Amino acid sequence: MKLPMGFRASGVRAGIKPSGNPDLGLVVCDRPLVWALTTTRNLVRAPCVTRNRSRAASEAPVRALVVNAGNANCANGDGGIWDNEDFAASAAHALSLGRPQEVLTASTGVIGRKLPMDRVRAGLPLAVADLSDDVDAFAEAILTTDLVTKTAEAEFGGGTRVVGVAKGSGMIHPNMATMFGFLFTDALVDQAALREAWRGIVGRTFNQITVDGDTSTNDMAIVLASGHRAAVLEDVTGALERVAGELARAIARDGEGATTLITVEVRGGRDEADAMAAARSVAGSSLVKAAIHGRDPNWGRILSAVGQAGVVADLGAVAIALQGTPVYRGAPIDFDEETVSQAMRGPDVLIEVDLAAGGAEGRAWGCDLTADYVKINALYTT
Amino acid sequence: MKLPMGFRASGVRAGIKPSGNPDLGLVVCDRPLVWALTTTRNLVRAPCVTRNRSRAASEAPVRALVVNAGNANCANGDGGIWDNEDFAASAAHALSLGRPQEVLTASTGVIGRKLPMDRVRAGLPLAVADLSDDVDAFAEAILTTDLVTKTAEAEFGGGTRVVGVAKGSGMIHPNMATMFGFLFTDALVDQAALREAWRGIVGRTFNQITVDGDTSTNDMAIVLASGHRAAVLEDVTGALERVAGELARAIARDGEGATTLITVEVRGGRDEADAMAAARSVAGSSLVKAAIHGRDPNWGRILSAVGQAGVVADLGAVAIALQGTPVYRGAPIDFDEETVSQAMRGPDVLIEVDLAAGGAEGRAWGCDLTADYVKINALYTT
Repeated sequence: MKLPMGFRASGVRAGIKPSGNPDLGLVVCDRPLVWALTTTRNLVRAPCVTRNRSRAASEAPVRALVVNAGNANCANGDGGIWDNEDFAASAAHALSLGRPQEVLTASTGVIGRKLPMDRVRAGLPLAVADLSDDVDAFAEAILTTDLVTKTAEAEFGGGTRVVGVAKGSGMIHPNMATMFGFLFTDALVDQAALREAWRGIVGRTFNQITVDGDTSTNDMAIVLASGHRAAVLEDVTGALERVAGELARAIARDGEGATTLITVEVRGGRDEADAMAAARSVAGSSLVKAAIHGRDPNWGRILSAVGQAGVVADLGAVAIALQGTPVYRGAPIDFDEETVSQAMRGPDVLIEVDLAAGGAEGRAWGCDLTADYVKINALYTT
Repeated sequence: MKLPMGFRASGVRAGIKPSGNPDLGLVVCDRPLVWALTTTRNLVRAPCVTRNRSRAASEAPVRALVVNAGNANCANGDGGIWDNEDFAASAAHALSLGRPQEVLTASTGVIGRKLPMDRVRAGLPLAVADLSDDVDAFAEAILTTDLVTKTAEAEFGGGTRVVGVAKGSGMIHPNMATMFGFLFTDALVDQAALREAWRGIVGRTFNQITVDGDTSTNDMAIVLASGHRAAVLEDVTGALERVAGELARAIARDGEGATTLITVEVRGGRDEADAMAAARSVAGSSLVKAAIHGRDPNWGRILSAVGQAGVVADLGAVAIALQGTPVYRGAPIDFDEETVSQAMRGPDVLIEVDLAAGGAEGRAWGCDLTADYVKINALYTT
């Protein structure tokens, strides 16, 4: 997939992953970027997360993003902080950028083990030499346990583009997993407006997916804008949200051991926060996830998950539909369980909930819970 | 197990469970009870939960508790509310009590299906005829998917007693699962003091266990005191907490598909709420639970779960020990992974966390996550 104007990217093998797969990705822009960052809510934060947050708080220009997979450089004490600084400085040097501050960093993989800086430093010139206007090698280099690369794009305003790549599929030992979402656009946007919009976009997309309810220490969603093409802000944010949503769903679908993407659409919420909380609660319930895996139209678990969200006082008016078939409306509805179960036999299951408490909507996405999830996460003993 | 003075109990087959196992339990006291109730935090509440809450708000005397298993009588619309009233009235009639208000009710089992009132009504006289001073038949009749009955007892002050029974093992289709904890004591206690103490006791015991993170619509913890024996309040509450704690751990150990009881002991919290929240976050993390199942000394997942609880700002001082072996203290500690993994091979695993933020402690209990959990919850298709 071609990058928007102004960006070049690459992905190379630096020898960080024991598998020998590509593990070092680089994106650079031909001019200072307008950008925005959203990071993990987990209070345990890797140095790359902390450093990017401080980059965002500063006014210093940013030109590049360097990513490694196979080692999260997290929980390594002060040594990890210095290695992360070294990572940025080495990338800036390889790119002939004036200052390390112009480079954002992102690491994902095993935690508590030292980042092999010799390999990282040796790999960076290779990454610079491989830079091109195609994002695919970068998209591959940032993966850890993902089964598939995740890219998405949108175009508007006669050629202005958004291209996004993501990684994430739950958490797997000894990897802390991590979700990365990186979006690139050639639109010209105001930084303050972009940051304000990005919070909402990430809130409705990457933050509304759940694989196992656990956050990672390294999660980040970053948007970089090169500013090559004038654009209407609403067009830009709309395109960013479409791409972020598509990537978020790709992550949920690729959940560890998952066979099914679960989409939860909630309407009738008192406000958007309520509707989104109810959607997250349903998408994140282990019981709902296991029932979907069994193709079991078990509305009781969905109702209970709605109740658990604590956002509606009157559950007597709540309505639930499964794959379009109403199954509950304040009381059980007669429906043919076998027919609905059959309708659930596919890679996508839709759960609709009407909270009957207002006019707000919210969506969340998750995946089914399978025996393979447990195997993946239990049987990688050290 | 013999009941404390003043109580009689029974458990009989009313034909509510398809298996034909005992499914109707009755407890009655020879005098009006001092009692306290804690119910599910889920906003979807079965009629028995709502009714007992209103009983607790009234001053009317209570003499008995009637329980059925196999049908939760939940989400059945108004019909379910009337069936629950009928349940109480029929029990009061069978016991020759003056008013239905003297009877508390509790139902557990499948939701969204009508309680078979003819069978319930026919079973109640049998339950009255079977009343004895032994609690075991009652303890068996309240089970659903539990593998074992759960009883515990404590004695103090030269013969004053607390006896407790519980049910719960996670959630299973089409059962909404439900956790019940019923404690009986012959101690004489003040009702206001008992209710105040019960909140804290339940908060530190039944509310600190997690099997799958999902609450049920019917969860209840009830203590009934006959008042036959004078007692010091602190002795009573201490005995209640010991019994409730033992029952809570029995529920976690009996978690669906579980092979291991996980105990999380947190110290160094800013306050008890923080320490308890951190303990719950670790015990409830799917990743920690899967790692324990694999006997994997994966402290990174524990640290991440602590971070997720959001209760400590400075994680650089956090310390973690697994089965007594320090594995992390602000940075990774060298330890022999194979030795610790071997030490984890048993039915009990202890995780200790020092938040290094204060002097408060908190505990939580959970179970490992196994492929059997998924099978149990996915493969019971309708």
